[in-house]
This record gives sequence, structure tokens and C-alpha cells, in this order.
Amino acid sequence: MGADLAARLREAIRDVPDFPKPGVLFRDITTLLLRPDLVREAIHALWEPFAAERVTHIAGLEARGFILGTALAVDRHLPLVLMRKPGKLPGARFGEEYRLEYGSAGLEVHRDALGPGDRVLIVDDVLATGGTAAAAGRLAAQCGADVVGYAFLAEIEILEGRRQLGSVPAVSLLLYGAEPISGS
Amino acid sequence: MGADLAARLREAIRDVPDFPKPGVLFRDITTLLLRPDLVREAIHALWEPFAAERVTHIAGLEARGFILGTALAVDRHLPLVLMRKPGKLPGARFGEEYRLEYGSAGLEVHRDALGPGDRVLIVDDVLATGGTAAAAGRLAAQCGADVVGYAFLAEIEILEGRRQLGSVPAVSLLLYGAEPISGS
Repeated sequence: MGADLAARLREAIRDVPDFPKPGVLFRDITTLLLRPDLVREAIHALWEPFAAERVTHIAGLEARGFILGTALAVDRHLPLVLMRKPGKLPGARFGEEYRLEYGSAGLEVHRDALGPGDRVLIVDDVLATGGTAAAAGRLAAQCGADVVGYAFLAEIEILEGRRQLGSVPAVSLLLYGAEPISGS
Repeated sequence: MGADLAARLREAIRDVPDFPKPGVLFRDITTLLLRPDLVREAIHALWEPFAAERVTHIAGLEARGFILGTALAVDRHLPLVLMRKPGKLPGARFGEEYRLEYGSAGLEVHRDALGPGDRVLIVDDVLATGGTAAAAGRLAAQCGADVVGYAFLAEIEILEGRRQLGSVPAVSLLLYGAEPISGS
């Protein structure tokens, strides 16, 4: 990935101030999704660092991670694993809780979606505090799978979410500064 | 599409009884998403009836419609429009309400996501009562766009959701019988 792609992604993602509450600057990827050339370029840039890693599965995190996750899975012709908010998956499942700024949240995966020998790339739109991504990694581990890496469109560097991911490689195409971010 | 594809999709989609509540048979597409060959075949079958319709945009309905919508958008290299539950989209938006069995629900789209001259294919996983799909059609119309058609993986025929869609062509790859269905 070049700095050029980062600049074009930054331009394609709309900044909406004071959403969902005053003081929060929301990064709106819907404007990026209207540009298929740029989406394709982003998908290829997210994949490239993991191209030699024998990835067997893509995991997408609800809800916006479903979009990038599906795009990668379709482009690479790989199985897609959904990691969903509690109460959405009907089968036998593993669950993980994680802390938010206020309160907590959960993430679940079907127990039979991944297993030993599977090598999963976890995909979401934004790496913020890293709570969701780390929970996704623990879910994959509960299934017995190996987490090959994390792929994010953007990363809020100041929140140091990367620290939650241990030594697992994490790629992000675009770095944001100190502004708070929110969304799901 | 052949009956053969329908049979293979039916086999790939897991039926989970009594979810999310007793008496409801849940159609779980997560098992299908683990099979990239079949997903690709389904995507191509959903597209084929609209191949000559000069579709300019794919609209995906939250949350599972994001998956099929993204898959179609990536495969056809088209812009993806998100139609989301209320409170998720940060920009200026249109909204539509629709009735559920108990209560009501809403769907929103950014006002600048579609416009006059755009020809949109609306995508969701299941056509049930048709409330969500019809609301999506009204949202596209509010933006000034033309709805070329609807594409669903599956359809619960007994619920007659197709009636809500007027004369707009609707394609589904798989027909289910009288069992109640739920999910989002």
C-alpha cells in the first residue's frame, strides 16, 4: 500500500461531526462503498500482507465488518465466518465479552464455524480501542483456529487498540488522529 | 437457475428450530457462507435475471443483506448502498417505517447515496412479509432512483411478501413452505 491509497481513502470516507453524540467525529464509510474501484484497491491492499499466510477463512465482525469481510471473502474465494452481537446466531456458539468506554458488549461465533487447522483473517472497518477485535481473536481461539492476522480499513492510533492484539499482525490502510470515533 | 441450485442451497442453509423463540424455524445462512463455490453460484444466479437491466447500484439491507449485497457489488463491480436500521447512518437521510407482526421497524438511507438516473437492485437474504423490502423500495424512490428489481436468496411463499413489491421484478433462489421464519 502507498501513502497515495491512504490519502484517497481518507478523501472517500466522510467525516460527520457530532455523531452519534456531540463531540464525536464519525467516520462514514458509506461514501467509500459507492466507489467500487477504490473498494477493490483497498481489498487488495488489505490482502497483500497475508497473501503468503495460507489463510483459510475470513471472519467479519458485525455489522460493518460484514461488508469488508464479504468483499475479501468473495475476492479471495474463501469461506466467510460471521462474528455477531449476542442473540443473533442460532446454533451452538462461543461468546466473549469486552469492555466499552461505558458498559460492556459481546461477540459470538458458531462453534462449528472454525476448527483446528483453520487459519483465519479477522476483518473490521476500524480499529479503535481493540476490544471487539481482541474478542474476535479469542473466539477464533476458542474454536481451535489460528488467527493469522487482523485487517482494518482504518485505525485510530491514539487509542492504542493494537496493544490488545498481542503479537498477531494487524494491518490498517489509514491512520486517524486523536478524534473520538464511534459506530457499529 | 436450476432446481438443482435450489436443492443445494436448501441443503447448505441450516434449519434451527425454536430460534429466536419457540415455534419459529430459523434459516441460518452462516453455513452457506462457509461454501464460497455455492455463494458464487448463488450470486451469479441472482444477477442473471437483471443482467440486461443496466443496474447502476446494489442496495444491501441491514444486517444480513449487507453480505449478499456486498458479494453482488464486488462481483459486478458496482457501488453498494447501505440501507440501515434507524440511528446508524450519520448523514442527511430518508426514513421509512413498516409494520412487523408485533410493533414496527424502520429503515434509512443517505439522501445522497442514490439519485435520479440511478437504477438500483435491492438485495436481502430472505423475502418474508415484504415489509423491509417494500420500505427499501420506497427509500430508493425518495432518492429519485429507479428500482430495477429485488434479489433474495430465499422466499417464504406463504407470507406473500411479493405482493408488497408491486410490479417490480423479484427473484428468489429458494422457496420455503409455511414455517414461520425470523432473523435480522
